[in-house]
Amino acid sequence: MALRGPVSRLIRTQLRHRCQQNRAQSVAVLGAPFCKGQKRRGVELGPKVIRDAGLIDRLSALDYSVHDFGDLSFQHLEQDEPYMDVKFPRSVGSANNMLFSAASRAVGAGHTFVMLGGDHSLAIGSVSGHAQQSPDLCLIWVDAHADINTPMTSPSGNLHGQPVAFMLKELQDKMPDIPGFSWTKPFLSSRDLVYIGLRDVDPGEHHILKSLGIQYFSMRDIDRLGIQRVMEVTLDHLLSRKQRPIHLSFDIDAFDPSLAPATGTAVNGGLTYREGIYLTEEIHNTGLLSAMDLVEVNPLLGANQEAVEATASLAVDVIASSLGQTREGAHASIEQMSAVKNDTEQLCL
Amino acid sequence: MALRGPVSRLIRTQLRHRCQQNRAQSVAVLGAPFCKGQKRRGVELGPKVIRDAGLIDRLSALDYSVHDFGDLSFQHLEQDEPYMDVKFPRSVGSANNMLFSAASRAVGAGHTFVMLGGDHSLAIGSVSGHAQQSPDLCLIWVDAHADINTPMTSPSGNLHGQPVAFMLKELQDKMPDIPGFSWTKPFLSSRDLVYIGLRDVDPGEHHILKSLGIQYFSMRDIDRLGIQRVMEVTLDHLLSRKQRPIHLSFDIDAFDPSLAPATGTAVNGGLTYREGIYLTEEIHNTGLLSAMDLVEVNPLLGANQEAVEATASLAVDVIASSLGQTREGAHASIEQMSAVKNDTEQLCL
Amino acid sequence: MALRGPVSRLIRTQLRHRCQQNRAQSVAVLGAPFCKGQKRRGVELGPKVIRDAGLIDRLSALDYSVHDFGDLSFQHLEQDEPYMDVKFPRSVGSANNMLFSAASRAVGAGHTFVMLGGDHSLAIGSVSGHAQQSPDLCLIWVDAHADINTPMTSPSGNLHGQPVAFMLKELQDKMPDIPGFSWTKPFLSSRDLVYIGLRDVDPGEHHILKSLGIQYFSMRDIDRLGIQRVMEVTLDHLLSRKQRPIHLSFDIDAFDPSLAPATGTAVNGGLTYREGIYLTEEIHNTGLLSAMDLVEVNPLLGANQEAVEATASLAVDVIASSLGQTREGAHASIEQMSAVKNDTEQLCL
Repeated sequence: MALRGPVSRLIRTQLRHRCQQNRAQSVAVLGAPFCKGQKRRGVELGPKVIRDAGLIDRLSALDYSVHDFGDLSFQHLEQDEPYMDVKFPRSVGSANNMLFSAASRAVGAGHTFVMLGGDHSLAIGSVSGHAQQSPDLCLIWVDAHADINTPMTSPSGNLHGQPVAFMLKELQDKMPDIPGFSWTKPFLSSRDLVYIGLRDVDPGEHHILKSLGIQYFSMRDIDRLGIQRVMEVTLDHLLSRKQRPIHLSFDIDAFDPSLAPATGTAVNGGLTYREGIYLTEEIHNTGLLSAMDLVEVNPLLGANQEAVEATASLAVDVIASSLGQTREGAHASIEQMSAVKNDTEQLCL
Repeated sequence: MALRGPVSRLIRTQLRHRCQQNRAQSVAVLGAPFCKGQKRRGVELGPKVIRDAGLIDRLSALDYSVHDFGDLSFQHLEQDEPYMDVKFPRSVGSANNMLFSAASRAVGAGHTFVMLGGDHSLAIGSVSGHAQQSPDLCLIWVDAHADINTPMTSPSGNLHGQPVAFMLKELQDKMPDIPGFSWTKPFLSSRDLVYIGLRDVDPGEHHILKSLGIQYFSMRDIDRLGIQRVMEVTLDHLLSRKQRPIHLSFDIDAFDPSLAPATGTAVNGGLTYREGIYLTEEIHNTGLLSAMDLVEVNPLLGANQEAVEATASLAVDVIASSLGQTREGAHASIEQMSAVKNDTEQLCL
Repeated sequence: MALRGPVSRLIRTQLRHRCQQNRAQSVAVLGAPFCKGQKRRGVELGPKVIRDAGLIDRLSALDYSVHDFGDLSFQHLEQDEPYMDVKFPRSVGSANNMLFSAASRAVGAGHTFVMLGGDHSLAIGSVSGHAQQSPDLCLIWVDAHADINTPMTSPSGNLHGQPVAFMLKELQDKMPDIPGFSWTKPFLSSRDLVYIGLRDVDPGEHHILKSLGIQYFSMRDIDRLGIQRVMEVTLDHLLSRKQRPIHLSFDIDAFDPSLAPATGTAVNGGLTYREGIYLTEEIHNTGLLSAMDLVEVNPLLGANQEAVEATASLAVDVIASSLGQTREGAHASIEQMSAVKNDTEQLCL
């Protein structure tokens, strides 16, 4: 017991560094400061506040090699008249095209890809870019809304309520040729998609969900089944036939507005903090998460600074938990631990 | 794809109007601005703040024919000395007699009846008026309190803690002849009543609940069983022998005080938002809800305007959910949808 | 029905006094205003704010004979250099030695012992004092943290993160001879301990928990199993072999920070109010609770007076619920109730 502070501190530091799963993986973080999929200013500041809440440090502490690629720089289009009711079609199309390429490159380079929105229209580019590298991916969409309106069923014309309609093969003949989207084509089968957290579904969306037989869990379903059963069924639905890459598209408004107030289309009765974390822990535990979006954090909509920071901090927790942060704690594997024990026999168990 | 904004908007509007269950039903809303069943001023303003929170529009959006009959106008009695410990017996009796007639007329005319309190003593008139038209009704009482004290067991003497004792046949010989109540007599069997949400039960009430074998679910029971099982047992208990009209008497203090702060006798550890909505969805899904009370919203007791609006908005959500608003979303039936599809083949699925 | 207010009030009062379980038990309350197991000032004021929130009245209302022994008076040590990284070893050791004696005397005298902290390092004295009288006790540790670091694994060197390591026989050869602790020796087997509420576990702690096979329920486990199942397994684990005294050591930071903001090491995603109350109800219902700690309420850390009062009031609820306060309500036993009925045949059921 002769070792004093500095030495034992050093050993503890080494221990902690080893006390994570030994990850070869790297994470690519990319901001998408874009808001034209909806009407409220501020959501383009999402990447900044999520980073300011400590994202990069938190991921680094999980022993990932973290590559922050900064923010995409989107071009401003002077001319972007609505098409039918669809607002800013060319701007949304162009931004997603750029994101498509970036997502594809990041996944192709072997990174786990993390996209920070921005509004949820950005999932068009993020998921399709991921799909270019991983055509057999499956999609878990965590959101208060289904975002599956077509331009014809959308009550608002905002594209952040329509991204899933661009992805699904089954909706191909329901989608008009919207300016700005000639680069994309549907790539996902409706059976490869599961929704979690729905509680504000438009009639046209409900018709689509039901007629395509899409697996979804509304808040009512979570109330009935419990989040652990919901995750069991979700993962079984998507992975029982084969193991394959998961894309998690997480809208912060899936959480209850008391937890995530700084967002554009909050709806009462959302996920609890613990449900959100459990959900992401379960996804991490599959070992199959390949890319994720965290969208719709809007710092201009929080009632005060505290509300903004709570929302951004929640976003960081969701990403960190998706990537392996655990409430159970963790320590190095038996083999590593043994090695540590040999080095420090007087100090450790 | 030639149709542009205005036309597709029109079609969407029609679609939405048809995209509800095709209801022949009408709803009668009646305010009961009354506070003398308890001691704190302000609960007589409940009907106003609940309407101000948008009740009528919300029910109209559910495709009901909504008849707002305004507020009852109660007479002020100069002389109303306590009887035993019972406070304001003649005022409470008179107000309930008036409400009894109104409720009976509304139910008799085929409306689903919605009474906005006021304090919970008003359930005497509301439920008994309902029972005059539907003698076989059953009663679901959602409340932090059992409200089943007799004048002899009541710690406070406030009649809003005693309404159920006026209703139950089994308590007939325990009830003194209270001035103002000669018009009423017990009409409900204790097996036709279920409580949900109890967490502040007086000793005398506990004795009554146990000796009459009344089915109740305290918050502890909800913690043990979960709200979905509680609703299964509740509806099975009341409806398994026969389908019959339901009266839902909902005290806003059933919710946790963090959700419903503007009320007179808040108790920690109440229903979550999602439990309250699940409960009312389940009641709606029976198709048997015939009348309901929403009571004890007191705008003078909120710490600020936000607290009052949150409480009133919650009351609107409870009523709308009881009458068919759904978190799952909804769309027109297959037949209607087909018709819509024929009209709008280019636009809809 | 001739009896009027005063008489019926008298009878009601008698009824209420009898309407609790007829308890022969007495409760000893002792404050331990101590903060040197951690770094933040204010936790030494915990006993005062918990008493100010009405603890003694609440326990008296449960028909206990309540003995408030005031606060321990700890000596201030001028010289208390760190040992290895351990901060204030002699101060913490001395305070716990004093508390050890007091706890032992209180339990020996037949009281149910309630210790009000102060920081969680105080459990060393409280549990070991209890164990001197009840060597076969078992320990339920409700906390966001495992508090089982040894001086070698502790990241901070604060003793409030290490108390369990002092108790466990299995860790005896991992503990150095810390100045101030010569009076204590390990007394608890790791199989006689269950954790509930963990969500911030250090790597060294995780290794200890796993290598000793300690039964613990993290928040993730509570999410998976539900609190009712967690309590079933907890009590089965500790009591199935034999009925024996329970020591409950409750850190207020087990609760979510939204409920217990005034504490030093708050972690998101904690127990709900209802889970905490359910947990303590279940412990009370065993009839085996013999001593408890309520620690880490720090009134200097609440954002405002309301936050402090909410935290202190929650502490009172936890203690009252552990000692028999019930959400179900209660009334006198059948025999007592009959006697009351004979006396007051005209009034009671």
